[in-house]
Amino acid sequence: MSSSYGQNVRLTIFGQSHSPAIGMTLEGIPAGETVDYAKLQAFLKRRAPGQNAWSTARKEADVPEFLSGLVGNTTCGAPLTAIIRNTDTRSKDYSDLAIRPRPGHADYTAALKYGGHQDYAGGGHFSGRLTAALCIAGGICLQLLGKEGVSVISRIASIGGVADQGELLRSTAEKAFPTVDDSCGEKMRRAIAEAKEAGDSLGGVVECAILGLPAGLGDPMFDGMENRIAAIVFGIPAVKGLEFGEGFGAAALHGSKNNDPYTVKDGKIVTESNHCGGILGGITNGMPLVFRAAFKPTPSIALNQQTVNLATMQTETLAVSGRHDPCIVPRAVPVVEAAAAIAVYDALLQRRKEL
Amino acid sequence: MSSSYGQNVRLTIFGQSHSPAIGMTLEGIPAGETVDYAKLQAFLKRRAPGQNAWSTARKEADVPEFLSGLVGNTTCGAPLTAIIRNTDTRSKDYSDLAIRPRPGHADYTAALKYGGHQDYAGGGHFSGRLTAALCIAGGICLQLLGKEGVSVISRIASIGGVADQGELLRSTAEKAFPTVDDSCGEKMRRAIAEAKEAGDSLGGVVECAILGLPAGLGDPMFDGMENRIAAIVFGIPAVKGLEFGEGFGAAALHGSKNNDPYTVKDGKIVTESNHCGGILGGITNGMPLVFRAAFKPTPSIALNQQTVNLATMQTETLAVSGRHDPCIVPRAVPVVEAAAAIAVYDALLQRRKEL
Amino acid sequence: MSSSYGQNVRLTIFGQSHSPAIGMTLEGIPAGETVDYAKLQAFLKRRAPGQNAWSTARKEADVPEFLSGLVGNTTCGAPLTAIIRNTDTRSKDYSDLAIRPRPGHADYTAALKYGGHQDYAGGGHFSGRLTAALCIAGGICLQLLGKEGVSVISRIASIGGVADQGELLRSTAEKAFPTVDDSCGEKMRRAIAEAKEAGDSLGGVVECAILGLPAGLGDPMFDGMENRIAAIVFGIPAVKGLEFGEGFGAAALHGSKNNDPYTVKDGKIVTESNHCGGILGGITNGMPLVFRAAFKPTPSIALNQQTVNLATMQTETLAVSGRHDPCIVPRAVPVVEAAAAIAVYDALLQRRKEL
Amino acid sequence: MSSSYGQNVRLTIFGQSHSPAIGMTLEGIPAGETVDYAKLQAFLKRRAPGQNAWSTARKEADVPEFLSGLVGNTTCGAPLTAIIRNTDTRSKDYSDLAIRPRPGHADYTAALKYGGHQDYAGGGHFSGRLTAALCIAGGICLQLLGKEGVSVISRIASIGGVADQGELLRSTAEKAFPTVDDSCGEKMRRAIAEAKEAGDSLGGVVECAILGLPAGLGDPMFDGMENRIAAIVFGIPAVKGLEFGEGFGAAALHGSKNNDPYTVKDGKIVTESNHCGGILGGITNGMPLVFRAAFKPTPSIALNQQTVNLATMQTETLAVSGRHDPCIVPRAVPVVEAAAAIAVYDALLQRRKEL
Repeated sequence: MSSSYGQNVRLTIFGQSHSPAIGMTLEGIPAGETVDYAKLQAFLKRRAPGQNAWSTARKEADVPEFLSGLVGNTTCGAPLTAIIRNTDTRSKDYSDLAIRPRPGHADYTAALKYGGHQDYAGGGHFSGRLTAALCIAGGICLQLLGKEGVSVISRIASIGGVADQGELLRSTAEKAFPTVDDSCGEKMRRAIAEAKEAGDSLGGVVECAILGLPAGLGDPMFDGMENRIAAIVFGIPAVKGLEFGEGFGAAALHGSKNNDPYTVKDGKIVTESNHCGGILGGITNGMPLVFRAAFKPTPSIALNQQTVNLATMQTETLAVSGRHDPCIVPRAVPVVEAAAAIAVYDALLQRRKEL
Repeated sequence: MSSSYGQNVRLTIFGQSHSPAIGMTLEGIPAGETVDYAKLQAFLKRRAPGQNAWSTARKEADVPEFLSGLVGNTTCGAPLTAIIRNTDTRSKDYSDLAIRPRPGHADYTAALKYGGHQDYAGGGHFSGRLTAALCIAGGICLQLLGKEGVSVISRIASIGGVADQGELLRSTAEKAFPTVDDSCGEKMRRAIAEAKEAGDSLGGVVECAILGLPAGLGDPMFDGMENRIAAIVFGIPAVKGLEFGEGFGAAALHGSKNNDPYTVKDGKIVTESNHCGGILGGITNGMPLVFRAAFKPTPSIALNQQTVNLATMQTETLAVSGRHDPCIVPRAVPVVEAAAAIAVYDALLQRRKEL
Repeated sequence: MSSSYGQNVRLTIFGQSHSPAIGMTLEGIPAGETVDYAKLQAFLKRRAPGQNAWSTARKEADVPEFLSGLVGNTTCGAPLTAIIRNTDTRSKDYSDLAIRPRPGHADYTAALKYGGHQDYAGGGHFSGRLTAALCIAGGICLQLLGKEGVSVISRIASIGGVADQGELLRSTAEKAFPTVDDSCGEKMRRAIAEAKEAGDSLGGVVECAILGLPAGLGDPMFDGMENRIAAIVFGIPAVKGLEFGEGFGAAALHGSKNNDPYTVKDGKIVTESNHCGGILGGITNGMPLVFRAAFKPTPSIALNQQTVNLATMQTETLAVSGRHDPCIVPRAVPVVEAAAAIAVYDALLQRRKEL
Repeated sequence: MSSSYGQNVRLTIFGQSHSPAIGMTLEGIPAGETVDYAKLQAFLKRRAPGQNAWSTARKEADVPEFLSGLVGNTTCGAPLTAIIRNTDTRSKDYSDLAIRPRPGHADYTAALKYGGHQDYAGGGHFSGRLTAALCIAGGICLQLLGKEGVSVISRIASIGGVADQGELLRSTAEKAFPTVDDSCGEKMRRAIAEAKEAGDSLGGVVECAILGLPAGLGDPMFDGMENRIAAIVFGIPAVKGLEFGEGFGAAALHGSKNNDPYTVKDGKIVTESNHCGGILGGITNGMPLVFRAAFKPTPSIALNQQTVNLATMQTETLAVSGRHDPCIVPRAVPVVEAAAAIAVYDALLQRRKEL
């Protein structure tokens, strides 16, 4: 089912941008795990809208209400369901888009798929708002991974062609603008501000690394760590590319450069480089698992664009009003972490039954 | 399960490089479809080894034997199983690698995962040989797609940094070296020959386009066309990156450049550009579905590399003997088509029940 | 996942007897279908507690709140989620049972499985209360089936050994006590009253028939209609047996008696008898699909029973207080219909893509 | 997919009665397990046809050839595939049945489902012959269960209304006619001989018990042990009923009689009776898991029956020739054990990741 992910933990996301609520159900979380609500709330806050210049003006507190699966703050083995009420909805902003699909958006394809019955308000089930539900699930998985010594870190690798400098070695979560090099971040912010000023938008790349992963996670062929991560990361709206380790860069290298030599460090087998991004044959080798996801620029822009009126079949000019992020990449950083955490935690549970 | 893929057609691949046979089962193919054996064989030949300078010297006829699912050459609704016997196997080439894992290969991670019980001969279940089974399934799906007016074409987009020129508009299947621009192909061939000469290897990028696809295929969130294609393409050994439409390039664009304006052509809604690669919100918009997969260079190289002897925990120098492709990208082209065909045919069957 | 069912529609049930809410998510319902809330409410009322002498005194209005998946009362293609708040909960009734498991209940097995972290209040996720969520999903599927001319009817076939008389040919939904023969129903009611008086409980059998089903639904082997129905019906608490058509009776028959001769009626192929319950080789033959589910007696009884105190490992005497149905069979009738409707609707969607 | 079963081990069965081969793939078996071929062969022999008076005269050696998943006799973690060649096939026996469906068989429903493209020879994919593949998988799972102290035993509980006497406490595998009480078995044999003589057939009931099971296997709701076992046992051709523990008998009992009192024995919690068949809330309680499956009489009988000619739509008289078991129940005994073993082993692997 298209709104579900996972084999050992199973996530189901429900809701539309302007439905009474959005939410998620997480099945398969072992009983007896505690959820730290404050920590979860802090994680959700990193994604929440309305906090600064580069995000939509829509304000949502994004406080999850847990309906089931817990006794106090401890999981009881039953499915964990949490919802977030949609409060600051303005359906009138969108009513017109039902027949004038926004370029670059799912308006047109959703209309085709659902025969005109799609919930077009705010993008419906396709809205980036749904990533709040993904972040509830991911925030919980991050806590569970943390107990096993696994951490997930990430950063903005580039925005609109402006690249971050330095290596991703520690969390950028505390930063308002999560780059490794703050001066690069400053340039990105300026690029976003300019794009916004121009009624335009920007895309970018998020880099993510998972540290402390045991070797032996993942499976050959269609359940490799790459496949598992791809299957959830491409579920984040606007992701159009994904690469692991050296990724597309590896395609230009010689084998002698791309292969990672083995060596022994502190009595453990490690590799001297990490071009493979911690994955060989779909299975983790104990090195950091590293990937990058490419986000296209926000399709909703104030500039005039050409669309077709579905009723008249005539081309028309459209300028998208409403509240939109000129660049979703900064807010996408915790979403990528959430997605990675779910995929990795799922693989970790899988691994348990093999040991 | 890690060797299975698909929801409406379900592919299961079995076999190891040196097991008695490899094969595949395809469940869910509608009854009453015919299989053109000669056409299938011609498709498999594009992938088969031992045909030219840039592929391994291992010779396998790769003639599938169908065990079930057919009455004559017509599907009967029961699972379709076909096998290929492994004949030209030389297990002695590999016996040493059990304790001296090849850098860049799954030797080490498989040993960890399977506690030393993996079939290390020839890469076992991780071997590129298993893509012959993928091509049986894909070759059948290609035939079924063809009946619906859908075609899958692809080309080598680059090898070792040498890029093909021109646009991918028609099949390159008839070419011995499948590029759009033959002079670029000639340069790539030279690069491969040089790498081989040096005991080294090269990676590359395969571009694939699916033409004639109906709009409305795919689903939101985790069953989008990107997710579906990623879940199978990352199952091809050596794939480390995947991008759709503009892909990573979109991350550097403004929304006003990346959005594809709608227009009307021959009474149908189309887009004037195709930066989105034919997919919006996970759902096809009727334009060509375009993606590129990055292959890392073949890890098996004759040059000296450093590994760790798992028995002694000492570093050692390794030069991989055996028969290997200096660059698998040319033979990977039909494999990518096969993977794409399976993913798209699966989505097509899904769509049928919605109409 | 254990709280999910279905392939083409996917039902996920969440909640515990005393959690803030119970609910369900239904994925895969086609867009553009309308939900008749009043009709759904009427269906739910047939299951709701507190309405008469033979049901628990717990009162719950059981009014579902739809959180997503609808625009007005029309499905939009996104997952359909509805919840029912738990209001009349008395957690104190149950606190003692954590260490003194009730015989015949899941108290002990849940404690083992979840390492003592299970939500023991009111049976937690194992509670019959969760069948209200099943009935939301089933009630919707019943409406969708109705539009295709398919109806689901059922009756109490027996309670405590008292059998109903007559054939199940039409719905008993309007009856307060759903038997075909009211005098038999009267005897059953008396048997329940006597059991209640004695502090005891009774089990029974529910018979269900699905009328108007097209031939050709279901699949061979593990997705036969028997398997599909079994996989959901055994999810109803207290079901311990299931049979189709002649069922266990067929085991005592000769083939010449059990086989259903084919004949032609109104130009259509039908069978003269229906010993097979409308299913051959897992696939419907166009005759009524008939099955019976056996419910064990409610394990919660006021009579003294022997249990083991998990803390002291000593046997103790237990008399279950709290509010319980002396016989759940009457309230189980719509639950069986709901389960059947979900299984059949799922098979119907599957069939669509084959035609 | 209809020919696949399982979540942690995944079984896929392929083949038709008269296709070149039948076979199975088993994914998810841990690496490093050994397969005892001789023991497996002995198990398969219990099911094989042509051995005595009450089975079909079709002779098949039923020797599996393993194609993959093993190194020597040890599993390597890759999918395990084994096939059995079909040798003694006589397709001409069946050609007529394509338009004259046998009553009680899947001929008619398969023709509807597959639009006339089904493989009608010998029942195609619906044939009891496919249970040989189930027995390969089950035989392997039985060996793996044995290493964990779990054994699966069963017996003929009744045939044609003649019931076995005594309790099922130990394996009947060594007996040519597997009942507990040999004199009852003798009566059953006579009943079968009489039915055969009369050109008729008989059904019966198989009882199965799983001993040594740990408590805590299985899940609530749709993945309970009842659901899991039902989902595979109803995949055995001719099964029309299934009950656990007291089963349908429990529907006639009072709670005070059906509940199993807890007590302590050798320091462990056990129940004094086992009306629940070792399952509460879908989860094993450590007592023997007991179930009974009802088999309808073989539909293929020599007596005249009425069918409809699909070409002329006229009723006709049919007497089924070919080679058929007058009663499949004796040969079904190991098949039921195989199915139970697969379901239980799957649940056992699931349980591992929870501990």
